[in-house]
Amino acid sequence: MATATEADAMRRAIALAARGLGSTSPNPVVGCVVLDAHGRTAGEGWHLRAGGPHAEIAALRAAAEAGHDVRGGTAVVTLEPCNHTGRTGPCARALIDAGIARVVYAVADPNPVAGGGAGTLAAAGVHAEGGLLADEAAAGNAAWLTSVLRRRPFVVWKYAATLDGRSAAADGTSRWITSAESRADVHRLRAEADAVVVGSGTLRADDPHLAVRGRDGAVQPLRVVVDTHATVRPGARVLDDAAPTLVAVAEDADTTHLPGTDVLRLPRTAAGLSIPALLDALHARDVRSLLLEGGPTLAGAFLAAGVVDRVVGYLAPALLGAGPAALGDAGIGTIAGALRLDVTDVTRLGPDLRVTATPLPTVPRPVPATAPALATAKEN
Amino acid sequence: MATATEADAMRRAIALAARGLGSTSPNPVVGCVVLDAHGRTAGEGWHLRAGGPHAEIAALRAAAEAGHDVRGGTAVVTLEPCNHTGRTGPCARALIDAGIARVVYAVADPNPVAGGGAGTLAAAGVHAEGGLLADEAAAGNAAWLTSVLRRRPFVVWKYAATLDGRSAAADGTSRWITSAESRADVHRLRAEADAVVVGSGTLRADDPHLAVRGRDGAVQPLRVVVDTHATVRPGARVLDDAAPTLVAVAEDADTTHLPGTDVLRLPRTAAGLSIPALLDALHARDVRSLLLEGGPTLAGAFLAAGVVDRVVGYLAPALLGAGPAALGDAGIGTIAGALRLDVTDVTRLGPDLRVTATPLPTVPRPVPATAPALATAKEN
Repeated sequence: MATATEADAMRRAIALAARGLGSTSPNPVVGCVVLDAHGRTAGEGWHLRAGGPHAEIAALRAAAEAGHDVRGGTAVVTLEPCNHTGRTGPCARALIDAGIARVVYAVADPNPVAGGGAGTLAAAGVHAEGGLLADEAAAGNAAWLTSVLRRRPFVVWKYAATLDGRSAAADGTSRWITSAESRADVHRLRAEADAVVVGSGTLRADDPHLAVRGRDGAVQPLRVVVDTHATVRPGARVLDDAAPTLVAVAEDADTTHLPGTDVLRLPRTAAGLSIPALLDALHARDVRSLLLEGGPTLAGAFLAAGVVDRVVGYLAPALLGAGPAALGDAGIGTIAGALRLDVTDVTRLGPDLRVTATPLPTVPRPVPATAPALATAKEN
Repeated sequence: MATATEADAMRRAIALAARGLGSTSPNPVVGCVVLDAHGRTAGEGWHLRAGGPHAEIAALRAAAEAGHDVRGGTAVVTLEPCNHTGRTGPCARALIDAGIARVVYAVADPNPVAGGGAGTLAAAGVHAEGGLLADEAAAGNAAWLTSVLRRRPFVVWKYAATLDGRSAAADGTSRWITSAESRADVHRLRAEADAVVVGSGTLRADDPHLAVRGRDGAVQPLRVVVDTHATVRPGARVLDDAAPTLVAVAEDADTTHLPGTDVLRLPRTAAGLSIPALLDALHARDVRSLLLEGGPTLAGAFLAAGVVDRVVGYLAPALLGAGPAALGDAGIGTIAGALRLDVTDVTRLGPDLRVTATPLPTVPRPVPATAPALATAKEN
């Protein structure tokens, strides 16, 4: 049973973990607080980037640098300490070597390669206990956990629309429907994502840049253009060198006008390119989270494929009465087939509303047999 | 200068006034708290229905029935006491006769017939002071004040839509997009309105009833069908006897299939019937507030006419990707012409969001020369 001090430390660790959002892929975000034998905070750390020290190591180092004795102490960590030697040594071993007596973690590691740290700790006589604030910690790691469980990137669909659901006026103009505050918030979403995806219609209409602006130290996401017929023109802003770009085209598309461009060839479907094939390819490139920025056709295809994990709508307090809708055909013909969501947050951003929602499952979601640990953690 | 006790009493009076919403037309809602000479509450009252006692009279009666002495006391009232003898005697005179020494009111009466009570009070030696919590009180009386100033009903446009702005699915089905909580709230809006308006498209698609259900003691609003070509069929639910109904048709429409129906003939415009003519006719029938329930074509016509005073959107956390939009053509072709709103409230109703917003003026609004008092009160 975790103590109130440990619960406070876990809340702090969850906040620390969030600092890594957008820069740790393909790794999870992790935060750690090390308490000394008297329950005082001895060190804090978080995982900053793949290849860098894990949160536990960072916290142990911070404690050592501050001259704190952590022997007999407790490590409070948002994810089960890893057990494998990747680019860094196993955290379970480092905690044992530091003389930590107790490890309290939130979410069990569902990764069959890295998981198992709790067992190693227990075998070494360290008391290891999982499940403290597991829901909160899992929410903070939703992208990574989803990518492990579903073997595809976590998909956030972002849209901007008027209160009557228009993403542009009748003449196609859309700058600016939403406020400066909302647009800045979109740059935060981009910075937290490994990839940003748009369709060719949005490309033609808006010539978007898609890179992150105004956020110091942000890792630029991979810009992905879903462009079945390879219509992107060589001078498009999305092809500049501000961030890497991938152009996904049909297997038989002519891309001779795009020398030097990173091209991904995908099977066609009736609606365009195969969304599952796109997600497979991105997952293989270590993309763990993806921000889908539109337009309506591509958003409809993602929703129809059932691969949208979160919806973030920026609703401008405006009415247009005409113009393209924020969402195009998603294969829904009748009200009973509506995609129902659970609103998890509503925030005022300047004059706008930001509505965050999660699609409700329409059928029971299968849990892969290789990932029993997460299912257990979620029940805590 | 009003005291803190008087401010508290005014907040109470504003709350009391709201009890009359929907039943006082063509009169305003008014609340009154009478304090005795020691500042203690002696009586409370509100205007319940046209023809019934005004709030001041009700409060004085309540004080008398409780045996409280109000001589030398203060009347705190949301609207300047009236000065004319209508269906009831003038309140200014009743307050003078009761020995009230001081009257604190929120909003000056802009009505050139009833106004002027403050002057009568002052002439009788009663100190009269306006402006206390004037904005709050004016907001509670928005419908009546608007109807006095603009000589037309206050118009609330209510819509229900998915997050992507659809009011029905591709096959026309729409029951139920929003939750039971939202639908109950719509009955509150109906009960607070003098009239409920729908277009013939909604009538054909949904055969709505439009009467208030589930609210004890509610005064049924006038049901108004905007039906240019008189297509309403005799058995339509809206024509039953649960509430009065008015069918607005073009001057030349054939209504021989509607014997006994209250028919209003209006001039045609390119888009249908003249909205200003409709509002004129309703105002002449003492309709001071109107709930516009749709559909998209009629809502577009009202917005294009610039006569929507408040927008209430019930947003269901659902996506459709196809189907009719909540709002049709409002004459807006480009983003610069978007009708901008100010969001005044966001409330969760079950799973839904209710967004209340006020259209921002696009041009300075003229204030009729006959109503300087309100302009003054609003500046307080």
